[in-house]
Amino acid sequence: MSRFWSPFVKDLVPYVPGEQPKLDNLVKLNTNENPFGPSPKVLEAIAAVTDASLRLYPAPNADSLKATIAEYYRVQPSQVFVGNGSDEVLAHVFHGLFQHGKPLLFPDISYSFYPVYCGLYGIAPKTLPLADDFTINIADYAQPNGGIIFPNPNAPTGIALTLAQIEQIVQASPDSVVVVDEAYVDFGAETAITLVDRYPNLLVTQSLSKSRSLAGLRVGLAVGHADLIEALERIKNSFNSYPLDRLALAGAEAAFRDQAYFDSTRNAVIQSRDEMAAKLEALGFEVLPSAANFLFVRHAQKDAAQLAQGLREQRVIVRHFAKPRIEQFLRITIGTPEQNAKLIDALQTLL
Amino acid sequence: MSRFWSPFVKDLVPYVPGEQPKLDNLVKLNTNENPFGPSPKVLEAIAAVTDASLRLYPAPNADSLKATIAEYYRVQPSQVFVGNGSDEVLAHVFHGLFQHGKPLLFPDISYSFYPVYCGLYGIAPKTLPLADDFTINIADYAQPNGGIIFPNPNAPTGIALTLAQIEQIVQASPDSVVVVDEAYVDFGAETAITLVDRYPNLLVTQSLSKSRSLAGLRVGLAVGHADLIEALERIKNSFNSYPLDRLALAGAEAAFRDQAYFDSTRNAVIQSRDEMAAKLEALGFEVLPSAANFLFVRHAQKDAAQLAQGLREQRVIVRHFAKPRIEQFLRITIGTPEQNAKLIDALQTLL
Repeated sequence: MSRFWSPFVKDLVPYVPGEQPKLDNLVKLNTNENPFGPSPKVLEAIAAVTDASLRLYPAPNADSLKATIAEYYRVQPSQVFVGNGSDEVLAHVFHGLFQHGKPLLFPDISYSFYPVYCGLYGIAPKTLPLADDFTINIADYAQPNGGIIFPNPNAPTGIALTLAQIEQIVQASPDSVVVVDEAYVDFGAETAITLVDRYPNLLVTQSLSKSRSLAGLRVGLAVGHADLIEALERIKNSFNSYPLDRLALAGAEAAFRDQAYFDSTRNAVIQSRDEMAAKLEALGFEVLPSAANFLFVRHAQKDAAQLAQGLREQRVIVRHFAKPRIEQFLRITIGTPEQNAKLIDALQTLL
Repeated sequence: MSRFWSPFVKDLVPYVPGEQPKLDNLVKLNTNENPFGPSPKVLEAIAAVTDASLRLYPAPNADSLKATIAEYYRVQPSQVFVGNGSDEVLAHVFHGLFQHGKPLLFPDISYSFYPVYCGLYGIAPKTLPLADDFTINIADYAQPNGGIIFPNPNAPTGIALTLAQIEQIVQASPDSVVVVDEAYVDFGAETAITLVDRYPNLLVTQSLSKSRSLAGLRVGLAVGHADLIEALERIKNSFNSYPLDRLALAGAEAAFRDQAYFDSTRNAVIQSRDEMAAKLEALGFEVLPSAANFLFVRHAQKDAAQLAQGLREQRVIVRHFAKPRIEQFLRITIGTPEQNAKLIDALQTLL
């Protein structure tokens, strides 16, 4: 604490990202990265602009990328916002759409950045407990609120809502913004972008970090009514004119244009996930039904923290959250077939 | 305006960046980009990481880049903050260090993003007029304040303060943070980073967009006492864990390692600037003494807006600010020798 800090800074409890260890030969299954690299066309598109043009500022409004995304999702470019990872997009969402003097609703077990944004922007969070089976209780969200946010599928549970369930939540709070955070949607849930034209209070965020294998490039987006997008644009243009660099703009656009690569890698991850779920169940794990690129599992006999430590000693890194209700779970990212086999081998030595 | 917006959003007056026209064959002298491309070593470093590793998140704390910058400026890594362009760095500075319920002081003619940040974070600005010769009145800043910020050299005037003058400002306000925004410092002013170990209230920001030819990569930094840096880190980690992508981290580090290229391109820009200043004076322009990579000029007889329009018709773009006191000035970025010659040719047809 320093007397030079703005007073709120001392109360911030920053988000702690999954570690990015620098050791080689690690089986890194802790941050839900895609086991496959990005599309070769993405790498080509980046290489094509890695030249003297880097001396020039990027397109401040990212018009070309927005047009590509709009075409992909069959919406208007004015319904698309892009940012430096979906984390930046979410930060602007909290700032621009959730400060209404009423509590923001989200699940008690969810993306742990949400309460951090609340701290940053002075928003009162109100967490609503997941049911005992770790599903979201739709009915709970029909209460006075200044906004609602939840991931679909939820993280770290991996459990998805149906579009009909999402519609129920959106319809029950017509006077506040409902944000569906679809970081993992491509691995098995349905996007709510198809609903945005019917609900002016619905905003959908997505990331290129998972299903498009571009965690290292930092691109996220939001789709919703143009009025909601305008709030985000006003904040973005009051914060940083060019949050996406020239390389990220080129790479992101190419990612949306290579549907074949997207489909094949996504399908491979889904297939591996389902195989892994069966293997983990055979080892005595309870496996929550996942629509994401990770599994959330607990063992009937073995302590999760000890399992995580035992895996680490064998150079396999998974994520353990020392938090109420989920302290006996491990979140395991789906890796390559080789990585997945190493995980199973390592677990067998610990059970 | 939408009822879904957080109330402050309707009052935001976003920053308007210089246009990035897509036309070819433009002589683009409107956004202070470097006429030279980045170092070939920067392009190599980016190419070397344009691969499957993009599937992985970047280093969240940018340790390697911070260590490189710390070594370059002979400070500790804990005294270095990096962000997605100096605009993002400045946004966090306003948020984390300037909210003290007292006015923030900055020059009336200065970087026009400062009042925008004030609007975003609810800070009361108090602008202090430049003297008639467009220099900063040091003595004016010795008054109660919640923070002080000014560019050195100032923009869009290009006029620099000496380190002794900066020290006077810093010493006169020991209880508030003084930020020296050194976006253009490498073209002729002295960096105040050499003072940070003596003044715990001094923070220096820099950009890789100008002297390192990387406007398109979006990297900025701040150097100061570790306590000030900690405030920025807390905000950054409550906002976006990974504001710099893997390509930007690699490119920025390479930029700081290629001193020879930096020196040669910087010196070429300085030489061109001084030649241009003489030519413009010969054409009847008053040229403010510039320590930056641009010139701020006015003509005794010709209207600035008309000149800007006349230049545009000849495909030469410069920046004109329709603002009090400077509406008769043009800000002209130093281009390549060929671009500079085209500007002079075009101006001659208009005078």
